[in-house]
Amino acid sequence: MPSPATLERLNPVDRDRIVKLIDEVIKETNAYLCCEDGVCSDNLCVVHNKEGVRNVVQSGADRISAGVGLKHAEFDVAIAQMIDHTLLKPEATLQQVEELCAEAKQYSFASVCVNPSYVKRCAQLLRGTTVKVCTVIGFPLGATSTEAKVAEAQIALRDGARELDMVINVGMLKSENDAYVEQDIRSLASLVRRSGALLKVIIETGLLTDEEKVRACVLAKRAGADFVKTSTGFSKGGATAGDIRLMRKVVGSTLGVKASGGVRTQEQAKELIESGADRIGASASVKIVLGEKESTAQGY
Amino acid sequence: MPSPATLERLNPVDRDRIVKLIDEVIKETNAYLCCEDGVCSDNLCVVHNKEGVRNVVQSGADRISAGVGLKHAEFDVAIAQMIDHTLLKPEATLQQVEELCAEAKQYSFASVCVNPSYVKRCAQLLRGTTVKVCTVIGFPLGATSTEAKVAEAQIALRDGARELDMVINVGMLKSENDAYVEQDIRSLASLVRRSGALLKVIIETGLLTDEEKVRACVLAKRAGADFVKTSTGFSKGGATAGDIRLMRKVVGSTLGVKASGGVRTQEQAKELIESGADRIGASASVKIVLGEKESTAQGY
Repeated sequence: MPSPATLERLNPVDRDRIVKLIDEVIKETNAYLCCEDGVCSDNLCVVHNKEGVRNVVQSGADRISAGVGLKHAEFDVAIAQMIDHTLLKPEATLQQVEELCAEAKQYSFASVCVNPSYVKRCAQLLRGTTVKVCTVIGFPLGATSTEAKVAEAQIALRDGARELDMVINVGMLKSENDAYVEQDIRSLASLVRRSGALLKVIIETGLLTDEEKVRACVLAKRAGADFVKTSTGFSKGGATAGDIRLMRKVVGSTLGVKASGGVRTQEQAKELIESGADRIGASASVKIVLGEKESTAQGY
Repeated sequence: MPSPATLERLNPVDRDRIVKLIDEVIKETNAYLCCEDGVCSDNLCVVHNKEGVRNVVQSGADRISAGVGLKHAEFDVAIAQMIDHTLLKPEATLQQVEELCAEAKQYSFASVCVNPSYVKRCAQLLRGTTVKVCTVIGFPLGATSTEAKVAEAQIALRDGARELDMVINVGMLKSENDAYVEQDIRSLASLVRRSGALLKVIIETGLLTDEEKVRACVLAKRAGADFVKTSTGFSKGGATAGDIRLMRKVVGSTLGVKASGGVRTQEQAKELIESGADRIGASASVKIVLGEKESTAQGY
């Protein structure tokens, strides 16, 4: 767009024609326009026209620019659509959760991942959008009874959750009670399948040997999980490229692999995706998709 | 008891008489004898005669000595009876939980505090003893739905838990949704009361301002809790004498106050008790009652 000074130098007739032309161009290309507050008259902008953006991305684009009206001019849409925008710290307030939902809408994140007591509110706020509500089950220790996990999951699904991230019973895995671990996952998987939702199984890599990681992934796959996931973000360690490669190798291409715990930069996210992750759990999601180098976010 | 060298110096007749006398004295005073493996023919030892020991303690004794056969000759019985012997790390194996139960029997701890999936096994192992099974609800984040906490509690009580340590919804407290926090506790309190069990309410002091600590204690008392408790051991901070004094002041003498999180020495335990705690949650419980100065235990 010409600067006001340039326009000033034109004669009034040319100036009016140019301004009119600019208006028309803006109107025709309003796939690139959107208000900051999410109000979008025809849903053609990069934020609201998710399907269109997905087509562009699938055709090979890995960044999409957006102009006037968008607070952030450029963000990595392909990564955004892989992110579970996460806020699981126990002291998170209702207001912070509402902000999380607003950001998820703005950047078309795959989901918001919140604790179960906030599921109902998020489902209200995200109704009619493509952003799903994800919640956590038996989190973060995974050491509650299977029946308690099932009850918690039933309530979360009823409240509007479409993705459940459950934690395996790590103690039972270490006690070599594989039948228990598998049945624990299977009970959730059956329930989630009936609801048309997704089940991700957190194996908590930071507490496991490589042999245990492999065993946990095999059990999760056998029990009917949709994803395996590295970490809760509340224990030792977090997502590493090595663990993602190992997990992808074990589960093959039919299951998803979610990298979570300590993912704070776009560089990290890209490395994990290149290693086989197709979902990222992060609280620094906005910084990640904007490609900001410095992040002060503290894990989850 | 005379040393073998002293006995050697006596003539055979005297020696036999003395050895016989010692045998008789040991037999008569076998309140002081117990086998390390917990086998006790008449339940008169300091480990198994809990009622007798309690009488002695209530009469003013604060240490009781025990002799032959007891692995540890002397331990602080009064403190032992205030301790919830705790193992909540997610990677705890069945074998470690069984050892925890054996120690709890040996030292007459108030309870073992374990994750819900181990409640049934602990209830089997502790049947017929004075050691209760304590478990945790909505732990450690407290951010699951009230209904999920209730379901988890029902299952735990059915499995044999007699004490439940629930975590408040910290996020709702910080959102100033006091009605939610109170109702969350009240739902558990009603259930627990009907079962004749005890409810402890973890307020997670490390995440709260002093004003919030006071508010949380008031809500817990009003909702029908039996105890307020400082910390999960999985967040910032742990039990401090200052917090215990504050909590005791707020709840008065009708509720219990449990100090937990980072309690590793007898000195610490005594300071917390002097500040108003009447229950201690610890994993270093054996070292605490033995008064060992150095402890390598890592919190929970």
